[in-house]
Amino acid sequence: MRTLAVMTAGGDAPGMNPCIRAVVRTALNYEMKVLGVVGGFDGLIRGNFTPLGARDVGGILQRGGTILQTARSKTFLEPFAQQEALRQLNAAGVDALVVIGGGGSQRGALALHQRGVPVVGVPASIDNDIYGTDICIGVDTALNTIVDAIDKLRDTASSHNRAFLVETMGHESGYLALQAGIISGAELVLIPEIETSVEAVAQAIQDAYRRGKTHAIIVAAEGARPSVAQLASQIDEMEVGFTMRVTILGHIQRGGKPSAFDRLLASRLGTRAVELLREGRRGVMVGLSGREVVAVDLADVASRKRELPMEYYQMAITLAR
Amino acid sequence: MRTLAVMTAGGDAPGMNPCIRAVVRTALNYEMKVLGVVGGFDGLIRGNFTPLGARDVGGILQRGGTILQTARSKTFLEPFAQQEALRQLNAAGVDALVVIGGGGSQRGALALHQRGVPVVGVPASIDNDIYGTDICIGVDTALNTIVDAIDKLRDTASSHNRAFLVETMGHESGYLALQAGIISGAELVLIPEIETSVEAVAQAIQDAYRRGKTHAIIVAAEGARPSVAQLASQIDEMEVGFTMRVTILGHIQRGGKPSAFDRLLASRLGTRAVELLREGRRGVMVGLSGREVVAVDLADVASRKRELPMEYYQMAITLAR
Amino acid sequence: MRTLAVMTAGGDAPGMNPCIRAVVRTALNYEMKVLGVVGGFDGLIRGNFTPLGARDVGGILQRGGTILQTARSKTFLEPFAQQEALRQLNAAGVDALVVIGGGGSQRGALALHQRGVPVVGVPASIDNDIYGTDICIGVDTALNTIVDAIDKLRDTASSHNRAFLVETMGHESGYLALQAGIISGAELVLIPEIETSVEAVAQAIQDAYRRGKTHAIIVAAEGARPSVAQLASQIDEMEVGFTMRVTILGHIQRGGKPSAFDRLLASRLGTRAVELLREGRRGVMVGLSGREVVAVDLADVASRKRELPMEYYQMAITLAR
Amino acid sequence: MRTLAVMTAGGDAPGMNPCIRAVVRTALNYEMKVLGVVGGFDGLIRGNFTPLGARDVGGILQRGGTILQTARSKTFLEPFAQQEALRQLNAAGVDALVVIGGGGSQRGALALHQRGVPVVGVPASIDNDIYGTDICIGVDTALNTIVDAIDKLRDTASSHNRAFLVETMGHESGYLALQAGIISGAELVLIPEIETSVEAVAQAIQDAYRRGKTHAIIVAAEGARPSVAQLASQIDEMEVGFTMRVTILGHIQRGGKPSAFDRLLASRLGTRAVELLREGRRGVMVGLSGREVVAVDLADVASRKRELPMEYYQMAITLAR
Repeated sequence: MRTLAVMTAGGDAPGMNPCIRAVVRTALNYEMKVLGVVGGFDGLIRGNFTPLGARDVGGILQRGGTILQTARSKTFLEPFAQQEALRQLNAAGVDALVVIGGGGSQRGALALHQRGVPVVGVPASIDNDIYGTDICIGVDTALNTIVDAIDKLRDTASSHNRAFLVETMGHESGYLALQAGIISGAELVLIPEIETSVEAVAQAIQDAYRRGKTHAIIVAAEGARPSVAQLASQIDEMEVGFTMRVTILGHIQRGGKPSAFDRLLASRLGTRAVELLREGRRGVMVGLSGREVVAVDLADVASRKRELPMEYYQMAITLAR
Repeated sequence: MRTLAVMTAGGDAPGMNPCIRAVVRTALNYEMKVLGVVGGFDGLIRGNFTPLGARDVGGILQRGGTILQTARSKTFLEPFAQQEALRQLNAAGVDALVVIGGGGSQRGALALHQRGVPVVGVPASIDNDIYGTDICIGVDTALNTIVDAIDKLRDTASSHNRAFLVETMGHESGYLALQAGIISGAELVLIPEIETSVEAVAQAIQDAYRRGKTHAIIVAAEGARPSVAQLASQIDEMEVGFTMRVTILGHIQRGGKPSAFDRLLASRLGTRAVELLREGRRGVMVGLSGREVVAVDLADVASRKRELPMEYYQMAITLAR
Repeated sequence: MRTLAVMTAGGDAPGMNPCIRAVVRTALNYEMKVLGVVGGFDGLIRGNFTPLGARDVGGILQRGGTILQTARSKTFLEPFAQQEALRQLNAAGVDALVVIGGGGSQRGALALHQRGVPVVGVPASIDNDIYGTDICIGVDTALNTIVDAIDKLRDTASSHNRAFLVETMGHESGYLALQAGIISGAELVLIPEIETSVEAVAQAIQDAYRRGKTHAIIVAAEGARPSVAQLASQIDEMEVGFTMRVTILGHIQRGGKPSAFDRLLASRLGTRAVELLREGRRGVMVGLSGREVVAVDLADVASRKRELPMEYYQMAITLAR
Repeated sequence: MRTLAVMTAGGDAPGMNPCIRAVVRTALNYEMKVLGVVGGFDGLIRGNFTPLGARDVGGILQRGGTILQTARSKTFLEPFAQQEALRQLNAAGVDALVVIGGGGSQRGALALHQRGVPVVGVPASIDNDIYGTDICIGVDTALNTIVDAIDKLRDTASSHNRAFLVETMGHESGYLALQAGIISGAELVLIPEIETSVEAVAQAIQDAYRRGKTHAIIVAAEGARPSVAQLASQIDEMEVGFTMRVTILGHIQRGGKPSAFDRLLASRLGTRAVELLREGRRGVMVGLSGREVVAVDLADVASRKRELPMEYYQMAITLAR
């Protein structure tokens, strides 16, 4: 194996840069040449490669985003596009590829594997919705960003006797919202996996008021129903004790300096991805399982769903009392 | 002067707590007794006082919000409410009052002064819209919060070739947005004081794209027209190079640990407020003028408007190139 | 089980407060009464108890340190002191005890267990040197603090072409230093578990210089030999390219807002400790094993040693190139 | 004026990068060509120039240190070195020079001015010891770093009933220490400008203990006497209530993302420096005076000393009670 390519794809996640750095330096240590693919799968189709040396990945450990840029590619679902990617990889003399990205990107990696490209995936997604790893690169940083934001909201909530509805990312997965709810002391967490009624939310807010709290925090994933907008307008009519405010955290959750945890996770997964390719493994994704870094078949990653640990849901409620 | 009361009123601002601490400890140093009014002007009307000793304000330097709570009071505009406040202050044996708050709160302070209460105001408002002081308590912390958020947005914007419309607080004043725009490297700043067209915004984004930037940031005050929602929907139809995203920063701008600057400003203003009352001054607000802490008549504060320094507007555009 | 006591002991660690909160609220949820022991084992000997309700642990999720205070007790090693503690627990009607602390504190918990007190331990120590858990409460926050500090040092190091020797905590364990070294991009890590020569350190710095780096970072645990002071004075005489500076991070590593990870870990472990006591388990410590919270015999915790994962040592070197 | 050079010199300060950006983009706006001098005055002597375009200073607003690197040059005090610098500037076709740096660098700028180079200085120094400006670039960020560190120390101090001696930068000026002391709630501040006795420090710590505080913080500038090491060893023998710990903050004070305040100050001063040169002014330093940016003769800057405002000293003591 002489030439390795590395790319980031899908939505960006903090920690992609330390992962790129780990891939590059580990490969250089094995005396490979490394090419970066610029701009995700679309960049791959266009053959947008750039050589990466040790100094090119210096100083990126602490930078959010991805120096290789990324994009959600619709084109790449088409066979002709995958064919074109294959041609570009061959033309550039690439012997193996590391794909850092979310669930969709792992499916893209699988498609390339099935066309014969030696590929290993690395899971990066703040939603933590990928099968085969305890946690994805980016989740820990996103949680810290959310918690910092809610800590700030609590300052102003307490000063004004207010209840805040805080929307986190998570269209289909409530992972971020649930963890954030526990660690920011939310009264209740709303997630796509569990439907809640307006009344239950109103009740939780009123309970907090009656317990003598000076504020209430409700954390809701983007995909939860009812939505924060619906909740806010309906609860404002009821007598819950607090006045209501809505905050949608938005894209700040994707940015920021990678946390210590994400830097380490990204370094470990990136290192292992290169080692696996050297050992002749392909068509797998690296993942964290307990303390170990493991390899999971991309076919399993693509077809199975990560379950949300539901014991956290009860813990959120108990600890909010 | 034996008994001093201190209160926070209006919207909360980071730095109110260090200011309360400075008022309390300076007064104790002069052997006064200190009462805190809980809950702003509404609390004053209800006679909601709590004694404050040196230990009660220990450990609050670094806490956002206000331990005395606050509220925007509509009632207090009514003469009977002001009369009631006067009665409560007398009943509690209060000799003088410090009111920490925004423009509305300074008008409340003036009303009490006109009814004979020895009162000094302290300006605290993240909008920086109060006449008589270079800067209000809370502005610096809010700017740091905004800048941190935009730094995070830039990480993800750069990774995806996106343009972000970022809405800051500021219904009537563009101060926060304008400063934030300069220091976060925004392409353009939209403020209530200057009308802009959708086309001008689209042009600024397109210019950034043509200059080879990997992202564009537009910072808009809440009260700017057109609004970020209008802009986003209309610009998305045009060909500006970047895809568009909107982020409304919301109430996180009010919270958070007070910055070094705000702690010092709050300490200086709070200390001086007590000294002025001891020197027999009343009906004034303390303010920062250059390096000095000055006293301004509350009547002037209530009737005059703070102008936005417009040279910043050009600087924002020049530095964005 | 009607009355539960909870205490913190040994050196403090960020996350002790969220853990106290979880213990208290979980116990209240089971309708127990909760007493806090103030001041660690010394406080226990003096019978220094304080009742803890749900509101007493409100707002402490985001606070560093421990509201119950802590101390390293030498007295508690004596049988008479343990006897006295037992008497105080009985006098206060305590049915079970949760001890949050480091290795020494878990040995204290074992001593009480051996005297018949139903006790469960929770591991909290920034050194991560406790057998029976993948990670202790406080480690993640400490790592983030270290990484933030080194990121700052790198700014100034790069601007001046300097090499920094950075000393982290860790008298006997190199865990913090090793992880911090990997995630902050250190050239070399010095830990008590592996002896290094002055020459090897000088070589690593010189290599960084020759590779064209603008700075070099060496991270050393407190207990590593040679010490940073020895290194600095000797290397300054050699020709390594960079000028040398030393920074001893010191006690800032113990403080600060608990990180998202530590808040969640503390919440999970605190919750489980109470559940285990209710289930009749005693003489155990809760720990994290992969994704699961497990119970380990305190006798094992007290007698066995946690091994440092040495594969990280090579990773640190590879990724620094 | 066709070609402008910009350089950083002396110790680095956070905010130098935003200042470089402002100089470059303002100059480009006036259609000048801009050269960066790499490596301070030593780089100037070697003719180490690099062209700077608008994109070269993109993304540096939020970066600590200086992309142009810097150094303390002893050589530059020699006439031959200044002569050589002049030659290099002429050879590169430089029409005017902006020097960003501390007091020594402003003296270097004056030397060039006296040799006929059109030069404007910009004050950047975390010590805030430069005559002619209310505040230097870097001070605000350094204060925030110090305050964050002391907030962390207080967490652990409170948990253990400890007193901390915290050493900040400041060999000859107590500015940083004094401000930091006020805003971090220190019991006492030790500065080079005022001698203190060991007994007075011990007394301040004991007073804090007697008032019922759970910790005490003493902030000392590097140049204060007695030193923190002397204090720690002597006070430990006395009975002051708390046990003692020392923390030397060191070089982290120089690094870190520039704060909002420093970014704005740097942008304003950098912009104005270019404008002044265009207006034909030379031999001056830009400075902040109240709300205004002013120009001060470099001869005055070089010969006069900035006084520390001593009213802060009493404020620190009053607010610590």
